[in-house]
Amino acid sequence: MAKVFDYSEVAKHNTADSCWVILYGKVYDVTSFLAEHPGGSKVILQLAGTDATEEYDPIHPPGILEENLSAEQMLGSIRQETLPSTEKTPVETGEVEPDGPVDLETVLNIDEIEAVATKQISKKAWAYYYSASDDLTSKSFNNAVYRKILLRPRVFVDCTNCDTSTTFLGHKVKMPIYVSPAAMARLAHADGEHGIAQACEKFGAMQLISQNASMTPEQIVADAKEDQVFGWQLYVQNERAKSEAMLERINKLFQVKFICLTLDAPVPGKREDDERSKNIGSNLPVRAAVQEDASVSKTTSNSKTPSPPKSMGVGQSLFWGTAADLTWRTTLPWLAAHTSLPIVLKGIQTHEDAYLASLHAPQVKAIILSNHGGRALDTAPPAVHTLLEIRRYCPEVFDKIEVWVDGGIKRGTDVVKALALGARGVGVGRAALFGLGAGGKEGVERVLEILKAETETCMRLLGVEKVDQLGLQHINTRAVERDIYDGPAALERPSLSSRILAKL
Amino acid sequence: MAKVFDYSEVAKHNTADSCWVILYGKVYDVTSFLAEHPGGSKVILQLAGTDATEEYDPIHPPGILEENLSAEQMLGSIRQETLPSTEKTPVETGEVEPDGPVDLETVLNIDEIEAVATKQISKKAWAYYYSASDDLTSKSFNNAVYRKILLRPRVFVDCTNCDTSTTFLGHKVKMPIYVSPAAMARLAHADGEHGIAQACEKFGAMQLISQNASMTPEQIVADAKEDQVFGWQLYVQNERAKSEAMLERINKLFQVKFICLTLDAPVPGKREDDERSKNIGSNLPVRAAVQEDASVSKTTSNSKTPSPPKSMGVGQSLFWGTAADLTWRTTLPWLAAHTSLPIVLKGIQTHEDAYLASLHAPQVKAIILSNHGGRALDTAPPAVHTLLEIRRYCPEVFDKIEVWVDGGIKRGTDVVKALALGARGVGVGRAALFGLGAGGKEGVERVLEILKAETETCMRLLGVEKVDQLGLQHINTRAVERDIYDGPAALERPSLSSRILAKL
Amino acid sequence: MAKVFDYSEVAKHNTADSCWVILYGKVYDVTSFLAEHPGGSKVILQLAGTDATEEYDPIHPPGILEENLSAEQMLGSIRQETLPSTEKTPVETGEVEPDGPVDLETVLNIDEIEAVATKQISKKAWAYYYSASDDLTSKSFNNAVYRKILLRPRVFVDCTNCDTSTTFLGHKVKMPIYVSPAAMARLAHADGEHGIAQACEKFGAMQLISQNASMTPEQIVADAKEDQVFGWQLYVQNERAKSEAMLERINKLFQVKFICLTLDAPVPGKREDDERSKNIGSNLPVRAAVQEDASVSKTTSNSKTPSPPKSMGVGQSLFWGTAADLTWRTTLPWLAAHTSLPIVLKGIQTHEDAYLASLHAPQVKAIILSNHGGRALDTAPPAVHTLLEIRRYCPEVFDKIEVWVDGGIKRGTDVVKALALGARGVGVGRAALFGLGAGGKEGVERVLEILKAETETCMRLLGVEKVDQLGLQHINTRAVERDIYDGPAALERPSLSSRILAKL
Amino acid sequence: MAKVFDYSEVAKHNTADSCWVILYGKVYDVTSFLAEHPGGSKVILQLAGTDATEEYDPIHPPGILEENLSAEQMLGSIRQETLPSTEKTPVETGEVEPDGPVDLETVLNIDEIEAVATKQISKKAWAYYYSASDDLTSKSFNNAVYRKILLRPRVFVDCTNCDTSTTFLGHKVKMPIYVSPAAMARLAHADGEHGIAQACEKFGAMQLISQNASMTPEQIVADAKEDQVFGWQLYVQNERAKSEAMLERINKLFQVKFICLTLDAPVPGKREDDERSKNIGSNLPVRAAVQEDASVSKTTSNSKTPSPPKSMGVGQSLFWGTAADLTWRTTLPWLAAHTSLPIVLKGIQTHEDAYLASLHAPQVKAIILSNHGGRALDTAPPAVHTLLEIRRYCPEVFDKIEVWVDGGIKRGTDVVKALALGARGVGVGRAALFGLGAGGKEGVERVLEILKAETETCMRLLGVEKVDQLGLQHINTRAVERDIYDGPAALERPSLSSRILAKL
Repeated sequence: MAKVFDYSEVAKHNTADSCWVILYGKVYDVTSFLAEHPGGSKVILQLAGTDATEEYDPIHPPGILEENLSAEQMLGSIRQETLPSTEKTPVETGEVEPDGPVDLETVLNIDEIEAVATKQISKKAWAYYYSASDDLTSKSFNNAVYRKILLRPRVFVDCTNCDTSTTFLGHKVKMPIYVSPAAMARLAHADGEHGIAQACEKFGAMQLISQNASMTPEQIVADAKEDQVFGWQLYVQNERAKSEAMLERINKLFQVKFICLTLDAPVPGKREDDERSKNIGSNLPVRAAVQEDASVSKTTSNSKTPSPPKSMGVGQSLFWGTAADLTWRTTLPWLAAHTSLPIVLKGIQTHEDAYLASLHAPQVKAIILSNHGGRALDTAPPAVHTLLEIRRYCPEVFDKIEVWVDGGIKRGTDVVKALALGARGVGVGRAALFGLGAGGKEGVERVLEILKAETETCMRLLGVEKVDQLGLQHINTRAVERDIYDGPAALERPSLSSRILAKL
Repeated sequence: MAKVFDYSEVAKHNTADSCWVILYGKVYDVTSFLAEHPGGSKVILQLAGTDATEEYDPIHPPGILEENLSAEQMLGSIRQETLPSTEKTPVETGEVEPDGPVDLETVLNIDEIEAVATKQISKKAWAYYYSASDDLTSKSFNNAVYRKILLRPRVFVDCTNCDTSTTFLGHKVKMPIYVSPAAMARLAHADGEHGIAQACEKFGAMQLISQNASMTPEQIVADAKEDQVFGWQLYVQNERAKSEAMLERINKLFQVKFICLTLDAPVPGKREDDERSKNIGSNLPVRAAVQEDASVSKTTSNSKTPSPPKSMGVGQSLFWGTAADLTWRTTLPWLAAHTSLPIVLKGIQTHEDAYLASLHAPQVKAIILSNHGGRALDTAPPAVHTLLEIRRYCPEVFDKIEVWVDGGIKRGTDVVKALALGARGVGVGRAALFGLGAGGKEGVERVLEILKAETETCMRLLGVEKVDQLGLQHINTRAVERDIYDGPAALERPSLSSRILAKL
Repeated sequence: MAKVFDYSEVAKHNTADSCWVILYGKVYDVTSFLAEHPGGSKVILQLAGTDATEEYDPIHPPGILEENLSAEQMLGSIRQETLPSTEKTPVETGEVEPDGPVDLETVLNIDEIEAVATKQISKKAWAYYYSASDDLTSKSFNNAVYRKILLRPRVFVDCTNCDTSTTFLGHKVKMPIYVSPAAMARLAHADGEHGIAQACEKFGAMQLISQNASMTPEQIVADAKEDQVFGWQLYVQNERAKSEAMLERINKLFQVKFICLTLDAPVPGKREDDERSKNIGSNLPVRAAVQEDASVSKTTSNSKTPSPPKSMGVGQSLFWGTAADLTWRTTLPWLAAHTSLPIVLKGIQTHEDAYLASLHAPQVKAIILSNHGGRALDTAPPAVHTLLEIRRYCPEVFDKIEVWVDGGIKRGTDVVKALALGARGVGVGRAALFGLGAGGKEGVERVLEILKAETETCMRLLGVEKVDQLGLQHINTRAVERDIYDGPAALERPSLSSRILAKL
Repeated sequence: MAKVFDYSEVAKHNTADSCWVILYGKVYDVTSFLAEHPGGSKVILQLAGTDATEEYDPIHPPGILEENLSAEQMLGSIRQETLPSTEKTPVETGEVEPDGPVDLETVLNIDEIEAVATKQISKKAWAYYYSASDDLTSKSFNNAVYRKILLRPRVFVDCTNCDTSTTFLGHKVKMPIYVSPAAMARLAHADGEHGIAQACEKFGAMQLISQNASMTPEQIVADAKEDQVFGWQLYVQNERAKSEAMLERINKLFQVKFICLTLDAPVPGKREDDERSKNIGSNLPVRAAVQEDASVSKTTSNSKTPSPPKSMGVGQSLFWGTAADLTWRTTLPWLAAHTSLPIVLKGIQTHEDAYLASLHAPQVKAIILSNHGGRALDTAPPAVHTLLEIRRYCPEVFDKIEVWVDGGIKRGTDVVKALALGARGVGVGRAALFGLGAGGKEGVERVLEILKAETETCMRLLGVEKVDQLGLQHINTRAVERDIYDGPAALERPSLSSRILAKL
């Protein structure tokens, strides 16, 4: 352990047969870990024999190194003066000139927050946050559908007062906007998920913690106020024991009020921007999410757990190991055995599943209508569609469980429209991450401040004082309603042209 | 009073503790006025210790200085030769080359009027006129919806004669187009609201005077012809006494035939272009409409009158002090106590409110369907939608009160379509202001001339001689009708997929 | 008459008091004619004291000079050597490089014909042909609506043979496409309307002759084959005697089989491109169609015949003197007194007028559904809408009179769709004029050749051999049907929200 | 035969009277063949007296030379050293810089495959593959209509397994995606249709062989695995004997499991890009598909077989000689007499024809809903429309015959949507050809790999394990349904405005 290595010595161990890396000034032999790495061996091999700290740090929570490597794999420390001087990778997008910190007060809306962040964060971080599946159809539709709903402002209503406070699962919050469980916050800014928590504290907003956060849950909630509300997002692992261990750890955090079980991404979507960004630093050609190495016959023949692709974007790496075999019948009882926290199901996209979820109250206390920010299945319906479906086909769901939504929220008017349709709250994911990228903790505060102010203005101009007064009378959804799923029956009408066919 | 100051002496008083400004050659101590300024203290502090005449003049009506400052606050006069030579701020938009006065006869339509004005007026004036809330969705939809209505020209009708004259509240006018109560006309041209009045006189058009006009009501109507028709727009102030004093003053002006009570903007909308333009001259960073200084806990806890934001755009400044607590029950009786003029309610956006207004006839004699030119709540419905709603759900409103509309009018065909839907008249706001910017009084005349000629051509080609002959048979609104609000009931149909849910 | 003038002498007479012009080498005193000129005095005064031949020639039919001026107004001839050498006006559009004659066989479609012509013709001619009213909404919608109709190709049908021949009013033609009565053909090419007639002869197509043709009717039909079919378009003049004289002249031309009475443009539309182009040659500022000189009080007070605007585009000049007082009751009997030719009514835009026209059979033998190529009233409905209206509300019209359409035809598929909807034939106006501009008579032939070939290909691929087999079964119009006029009744349904209103 | 010519000697024979060409080092006298050439004489005359090998090779299957020319037409061989050194035609599109072979693993989707291929293949090949009829409306609509269908992902479904295998006509394949019968594959890459076969073999995909393939059927299937499935596409020739001979030849190939009879292109569509590209190499002006040389009277007078146009694009050449007189009554029995293979009818575009086809089971075993990739009749309906029509008016068709579709498939989600609507499989044509262009056989493999992986991801995220579980419950087609053909009856409702008409 006391051994000190020269960089030239480390540099020799740059193959799958002997793979060393430097992390935080220490030298590790990760040869035997290559096969286990959730992100695939390739990404490690690209850094074999070098100082990998810069690449490793922002996407791994502290402590995970010790968790995964045994003591003997730590070979010693590096002699600092032997390290080559590194050139920081310049920003890749030619058009951007980072021009000093931006005065956040001059940033007027969420699109501008994204623009500012895009200039400041790495291409890799941008690609991971910005990307969505295939052609980004669902991602942009998520927002566009809000724009097609018209508001119905009432006049001669006293709008002096405006109160955005509400409750989630009985816990008081000061605004109906929460931060969705977005992963890898430290890619954007060192403040990371803890910075988001601090911003949420200031605005009385709820935060959902991603299982793939770049900080540990304990770190994130460390400075939380007593009444601050958190949820923790679970991706069930193929190795259930890992998930059970995590649940046990979460159960001890009193700040976490519920488990959010992710259902909308049992397998990774195809996020091409993310895939393209993967190897930018190393100038290696981009490789596709298509599982090109799995032999064709194997993948067609129902292989239980497909072997990992040779290389993956950030998004794909995170998914690795996630269970694809969840079911109503088996998963909810398993969860009940490992936590007594209420369950929130994230990723409901049809009224059928919303209805089924409502049958599992009270274990299930809420559902989140979400298409994973357009990142799972392209052309999946936006939450607004699912809200309208539930309203038409099984409105009793709203009485049995809370319905939250996410995806596409950019304006206070979007928030108000979702609430008027019956949502209890709305989540923002990218907005919070881009806020972090734009200005760390203060950037997230600015995002919440803008959305809250816009929401209040909208409520006032509608003549509404409290969020629970919002209802269908405040919105005109006709331009959207006509596109809502109408049941297979709609296509199976009695033949109108049987007369014509009869004559053929 | 006889004291004469050197500029260097004035320049020292540039803080909140001692704040002097030079206006029209005189030196004022406005330290104690800082807290009262409707536009906030910051905008004054930016000019503290300097000659503020250029900034002050176009947005304050003459006389208001004397009204607000006591005699002792006027310290003396400035020694002119000590004033620094000022460089006039060059036009900010790089693309524009002001190239001499435009021959207005070559300007063929309202869009071209706007283009000419945009080149000639200051960035600040442009931003105030052009801006609308959020993403400008309602602003552009206001116009687009007219384009989706088709006309139905009848042939073999004698169209030699065409008469656009009509009446508003019984007062004869020569055209169904009036000038909306648009504020801050002197930002565009020194002719100001008086110039608009002169143009209206020439064309027999009605004018509504904004409470926020840059000239006094008395100045505006000074040269009016006897039969010229004016209305005066009231924003009720938190300090009711101020509004009562104004009403008393208006009651004395026989040219003003009615009070137009503004309802569609109890709180300011979020006009980002306007906010961005605010500090252009002083090169200070733009600050947002978001009330960033109000502590979070305060604004959420139903603060009766929120404290003013640190800085505001022109639009926000104007709103400051406007009452947000108007109601059907309290405000109309209060108005009746202070004026016997008929009331016109501006800003109706739903058939429900149109119906309620009709119950208040005869005190209420007309309503104006308006979303404040898209400047209040983005994605609020255009007047065409509200017209169609009234027509479908409570057409009796048309029999009880007059229905006027504004927003989005750019062509004579737009005017004709609104009338065919039941509107008695249509207002133009930005068009008049841009007309003023394009050529002062003559520019406004050109706007009215174009719209009148286009309206006549349209009426003739439809086979219509008088405006009261226009009706639903002259238009095809199907492309719009399908988007009209259909009542909350529409979403609550008996479940079509209950069969499916039953099987789950 | 034998007098010969030096140019310097003529040049002195350049005012309204003494106005001389040189035309075809002769000197005329047109002072007393200024007030009578259908195109207004201004356009002449701009050329006063100069050789006006180049401007005069392409827009005046031969012989009209003698008709309008008395012998004594011809003062003598010009001494040629005294004429200043003229510089031909270069092409105004900077982007265009005329690069020699185009091989017409390489021009593949109607859009390309227009592109070629646009490079070759004068800006003035382009503006006159291209322009349409206001924002060109109807012009572009005319075409777009065809694109929204889908075809329904049937398979396993023998399509070896294809016959596009049909009849108009009983006269045989080889194709269902005719040339609309388009004015001012010589602006495009010296072949003029006679060239169009020659092209039509080659393809067995019918031609409608505009009253505003740049050649006399006699010249146009001069070389027609015996079975060639012409119609003559009448704009009834305020001075009915002029129209009666023209009808008498037309009655003598056996090639003209019917009178086409124009109804869709009793007053000129607002064609801004045309207005802008007007004064290009003389570098005078463009002046608007708005009747700016008519005093406001005059035009509002039902002036029977408004005085002519100071200056006008080509389109407006042509309209000058056209009667606006036509009616079913008076005009058809008057026509019957002056011609026994069948009447075709052009410009029907509603099913109501189509129905009324059908009541006037047999004097009225056909109607042309037309919005004047989008040149009269912007947002007027396309012919496809009117076809669908007739089909829904009064299909019996198709049995009583022929229904022709024009406007927006660019492809053979457009032709086929119109026929499938019940049209007997379709007219092309701009396509023929741009064909002339692209290559004179051969250019028009190319246009007809392209449209005929495309029509045949479409018929074959639909499985149709003859045009009278085309029917509703060959098209899917659902994307258009939903926008068809549904009657005022549609808006006056029993109130759906009366329940809500009752609660207010 | 032993004769050896100098190039200068050959060069003299460059006219229609004596036309020699050099092919693969041999000299041929093709004077008498000029009139017979399916592609027209012109394309040969352009190469008369030169070495035509480069132009000839990629579009003619080996062996066809010997088939068409007699022994005496082969005059001898060329003296190689007398041949002029040729400059290879540089790529015509200025913007493209071929930059070495692309790593196919970095190509992430079908659009990128097309982009890569477009850089690498000749302009002529690009034009032939890319082109579609008229304005490419149907081509782009084919894809856009898939984007308008939303997916309905179900959650809590075990999606560990995913099996894309299915059967076509009872033959097992590993994916529901097949390669459509696309012609001229060697224009893209020397691997040609044999390369496509090899790629299909790897992925267990079915391949349809075009009659116009650039390799012989025998060559294409040469290395096929025993269980590999092929179909052969028949364009019935005017000279039926030729088709009968081909059928006889195909009947001998056990790998070919069915005959695919093309019905959607009895005459060529108008592919303007293809026409424009035709003569690029020779710098001759482009000539149009319009049959400009056929005298007008001839083509209108039902000429049985129109004479060939002077010049044609690749597409038109291939069509030459194709029979236009196929009928249900005559063609199917004729086919039965010459093959016992099952028949698949390609090009059904209406539910009426789908229904008629189903009446011809079991000889007809499947239909392909296709508008020929938008290459036949522009504005013909996409396959999705026809699927929806069948589903609404005659769903029993799905029980009697298999329904396949092609056109517009670019994503796995498109595949899944077609299957959910009832299609058994989907064909890709351009994707395979562009894959070939991007990387030969490996490029086609990449196309299949991408589509298969995307299809699997989509199925998993929908909660579907096997393709036959896909159904209407997985898609929301409302945005498309409203545009489906509703029968002519829809337009002939009882008159709603008879009341109005009665009053006229």
